Amino acid sequence: QPWSTTAEGQRAEGKLKSNPYDIDAWGILIREAQGQHSSRARILFEKLVIQFPTCGRFWKTYIEHEMGHRNYDKVEKLFQRCLKRVLHIDLWKCYVNYVRDVKRELSNYREKLTKAYEFALDNVGLDMNSTSIWKDFIHFLKTSDCTGTFAETQKTNQLRKTYQRAIATALQGVENIWKSYSDFETGCNQSLAKKFIEDKTRVQMAARRTAKAFETDYRSLNKNGPPTPPTGNPKELQQIDLWKSYINWEKSNVLQTDDMVTLTKRVMFAYEQCLLVFPYHTHIWYEAAQYLESRSKFMAERGEPIHSNQMAEEVANWYERSISHFLPDSLLLYFAYSDYEEGRMKYEKVHKIYEKGLENEELDPTLIYIQYMKFARRVEGIQGARVVFHRARKDTKSKHHVYIAAALMEYYSSKLTITALKIFDLGLKKFGAESTYVLAYLDFLTHLNDENNARVLFEKALSQVPPEQTGEIWDKFYEFENNIGDLTSLLKVEKRRFESLEELLPERMKEKEATAVVDRYKYLDLYPCAENELKVMKYRSRSGQLEVGVK
Amino acid sequence: QPWSTTAEGQRAEGKLKSNPYDIDAWGILIREAQGQHSSRARILFEKLVIQFPTCGRFWKTYIEHEMGHRNYDKVEKLFQRCLKRVLHIDLWKCYVNYVRDVKRELSNYREKLTKAYEFALDNVGLDMNSTSIWKDFIHFLKTSDCTGTFAETQKTNQLRKTYQRAIATALQGVENIWKSYSDFETGCNQSLAKKFIEDKTRVQMAARRTAKAFETDYRSLNKNGPPTPPTGNPKELQQIDLWKSYINWEKSNVLQTDDMVTLTKRVMFAYEQCLLVFPYHTHIWYEAAQYLESRSKFMAERGEPIHSNQMAEEVANWYERSISHFLPDSLLLYFAYSDYEEGRMKYEKVHKIYEKGLENEELDPTLIYIQYMKFARRVEGIQGARVVFHRARKDTKSKHHVYIAAALMEYYSSKLTITALKIFDLGLKKFGAESTYVLAYLDFLTHLNDENNARVLFEKALSQVPPEQTGEIWDKFYEFENNIGDLTSLLKVEKRRFESLEELLPERMKEKEATAVVDRYKYLDLYPCAENELKVMKYRSRSGQLEVGVK
Repeated sequence: QPWSTTAEGQRAEGKLKSNPYDIDAWGILIREAQGQHSSRARILFEKLVIQFPTCGRFWKTYIEHEMGHRNYDKVEKLFQRCLKRVLHIDLWKCYVNYVRDVKRELSNYREKLTKAYEFALDNVGLDMNSTSIWKDFIHFLKTSDCTGTFAETQKTNQLRKTYQRAIATALQGVENIWKSYSDFETGCNQSLAKKFIEDKTRVQMAARRTAKAFETDYRSLNKNGPPTPPTGNPKELQQIDLWKSYINWEKSNVLQTDDMVTLTKRVMFAYEQCLLVFPYHTHIWYEAAQYLESRSKFMAERGEPIHSNQMAEEVANWYERSISHFLPDSLLLYFAYSDYEEGRMKYEKVHKIYEKGLENEELDPTLIYIQYMKFARRVEGIQGARVVFHRARKDTKSKHHVYIAAALMEYYSSKLTITALKIFDLGLKKFGAESTYVLAYLDFLTHLNDENNARVLFEKALSQVPPEQTGEIWDKFYEFENNIGDLTSLLKVEKRRFESLEELLPERMKEKEATAVVDRYKYLDLYPCAENELKVMKYRSRSGQLEVGVK
Repeated sequence: QPWSTTAEGQRAEGKLKSNPYDIDAWGILIREAQGQHSSRARILFEKLVIQFPTCGRFWKTYIEHEMGHRNYDKVEKLFQRCLKRVLHIDLWKCYVNYVRDVKRELSNYREKLTKAYEFALDNVGLDMNSTSIWKDFIHFLKTSDCTGTFAETQKTNQLRKTYQRAIATALQGVENIWKSYSDFETGCNQSLAKKFIEDKTRVQMAARRTAKAFETDYRSLNKNGPPTPPTGNPKELQQIDLWKSYINWEKSNVLQTDDMVTLTKRVMFAYEQCLLVFPYHTHIWYEAAQYLESRSKFMAERGEPIHSNQMAEEVANWYERSISHFLPDSLLLYFAYSDYEEGRMKYEKVHKIYEKGLENEELDPTLIYIQYMKFARRVEGIQGARVVFHRARKDTKSKHHVYIAAALMEYYSSKLTITALKIFDLGLKKFGAESTYVLAYLDFLTHLNDENNARVLFEKALSQVPPEQTGEIWDKFYEFENNIGDLTSLLKVEKRRFESLEELLPERMKEKEATAVVDRYKYLDLYPCAENELKVMKYRSRSGQLEVGVK
């Protein structure tokens, strides 16, 4: 049942079914909704903000439509839903203006508006484009009626505090606020003004310099782009680079403040802004968490345990938020989160995180089991790891990697070669046709110098693994004979390999024929031919890469 | 002291000093020489044929110049020097014409000329362009005077034999010879002719079809290009491909003959032709030897030991010729030659070949020692290999690879772990700053599960190896701790690695920072991120390659 009543709109809805991130299609529907009554429009706008929950521009569109129809209760509920999550400057300006314009009739209007301004400045006051909110607030404070010396003093103090916060922030056009502040101090008290102004000069110079320096780059940041999953297209990569340089610039403490809490806030504000546009980019979440963690450690070293602990909690919340809301399928974030909690020795929580990952039906549990096993080994010893492995074995979704990891763990960590071999054999029953698995087992056996079993496994593998995946097994077999066998068995393997692979890839192998001999005689980085010879032979190393820069 | 008397010529000589293969420069000098008296010209031509010993065109130019000055003794010496080595059709035609025209006055003229024709046809009679020699010879035989029935019969037999050889060869214009042959038989004996002609029809059809089929491709073979060392430029690669398809075409037994000796001769003739143009292309020598060897085996299987042995000797001669005359620095040919003789159990000869390689001052002996050691192990057991290793250790030119090979040989082949460790330690004293060496040792220790020594070696390596080469050592250290250590030691290594490498490659590392976490959590081919995420993270695997096709 399409929502749209036009042919174009219905086509757009069709498009969204295959690609819910199709911005042009959304554009068509938004324009249609803007001409509709709110009850109908709302259906579309709800879909829109659910699809793009971090997109300030779309929330604003939705809210403005409700405002146009004077559905103020709806407006306020929408603000409640988005404001704290979407630190988008235009959305917040819209909010402040709403309070200013709509609440005028209320008895506690001034109080409400003051709160709104303070709320906005606490949340987006670091935004370079928040200048107008600062100015409006200052103007509002200035024009407030007050009677009595006490009230006058209070007003002056609040104005001064606001001015000083504003001029210490890198805002666009901060110099105007500075001028207005000078006038204000001079107006208050000619003789004290000089001292105040002198005091704050350095700070406002830094803010002004900062705002200037980044103005151009900041303007090229696209803060309205509706977020999509990573695509890797050049425009996206360029925007990521811009955001990163903005974030790094904040990290470099541009305002030269000694207040590390403020610095951290500024950096995290930058990350938040970036994540409004790229909420599905795992590594940005991860980097922000890394940064916050390093700050927390820094605070601890500095002897500020309260701030340190607070930030440490924020790190955990940050990870939680990322996997709960935006990236429930990001293994990387699960693992980073687990490791973080492991580092804080919150082992119960680590278990919960791994369990959460394992409960997620969308995820291949293999890597989760492996990391879980490693965690268990570190914290509970090999017994703990075995419990996880036992569970992994029973899970029909786990792949062969779990067996390899478990076997090698027994070997490297508990030094039980026999147990390792048993696990490998166990896995072989299930994954004997899986070349990666067999290769890992072969690698293990050859390094153990277990010639006989290796030879048996080679033959078994070559009979079980699908022929088109035997390339590496043949290579390993060849290397094995090159280490151990005589020339006849070596040449026999070479011939068998060639014959077996020739059927599959006749063209590629014809070139290989000539260059197999290079592989036979090379040793590490030593080649039996000069570089130009390899070139005319079209030599490629086993890995398939054309070798360059040899000898 | 320049040879040329002109400014242009002297410039050309200057050019040849930096690039003796500069064909344009040679061209200028050749033109100058062609206008000179033979005593002066000879100086240049000698240089020319020494530089390009396989280039038939240049030999011909030289000889024609001497002919022009009637220096027939010189001419004959020149033919002696080049003919057998240079199976270039135009050069051979020049020779036959020389005998025909110059020897006319001799009393044994006809005898001499007959020999010359037979000599030419034995050597280049398989050349598609040798038609005129065949025709001339036939004409010459036809016009010979003879008296008596016996002489007549002999003449007829010789003519018939020559005709039949010619029509069985894929020659350009072979159909004319066929026609002339038919006439000849009809002229001899009307009734027998039919049988003779019927008999040979199939063979001449095959030859004719063959000549036709390859005519165009054959014409694009550049048979005059003066040989240069491999450069890998597209023209060269294209020519190599053309030659290869010509050779493969011969290998496919185009004439459908049952005579395997003839087939082999044709193929080897094609290789000889190709090597006139590419005598410095190792792999062509090698492939030809491989072919000849396979033919020798085939003959043995067929129960023709005499032919088989003869071909087997030819293989050895072929290798000998390649390293003696053209490619004395080609390790590949030394090794292939040795393996070939080892396969024939001519162990004395193998020793001689390796000795020859070791005597060559131009060659890095490392790889030779390694292959020599492997040979000795296979044939004489580990004791023999140790003798070679002992010698390698004393040779100041051998590199660290020898120690690695020797140590692993003791481990894999004689199962002496302690000896292997001793050799590794021995090498460490000399090559402790060589990252490849240390990595091989580390690999050995970690696979042995020798944790303590591995840890000691890691620290030692990181202090001795030049920092810019420690990347892989850090990676291995990290992997080691990931297998064995707790989270703290793992993160410690990660941090140390990052700090150490950051100083060296700050730019590269900044990107690495974000992606190091991927390496931490990936397992074999399982990644903690989707492919599109890796892409936006600019993730590269440890080997530096951008990963594709994962997960």
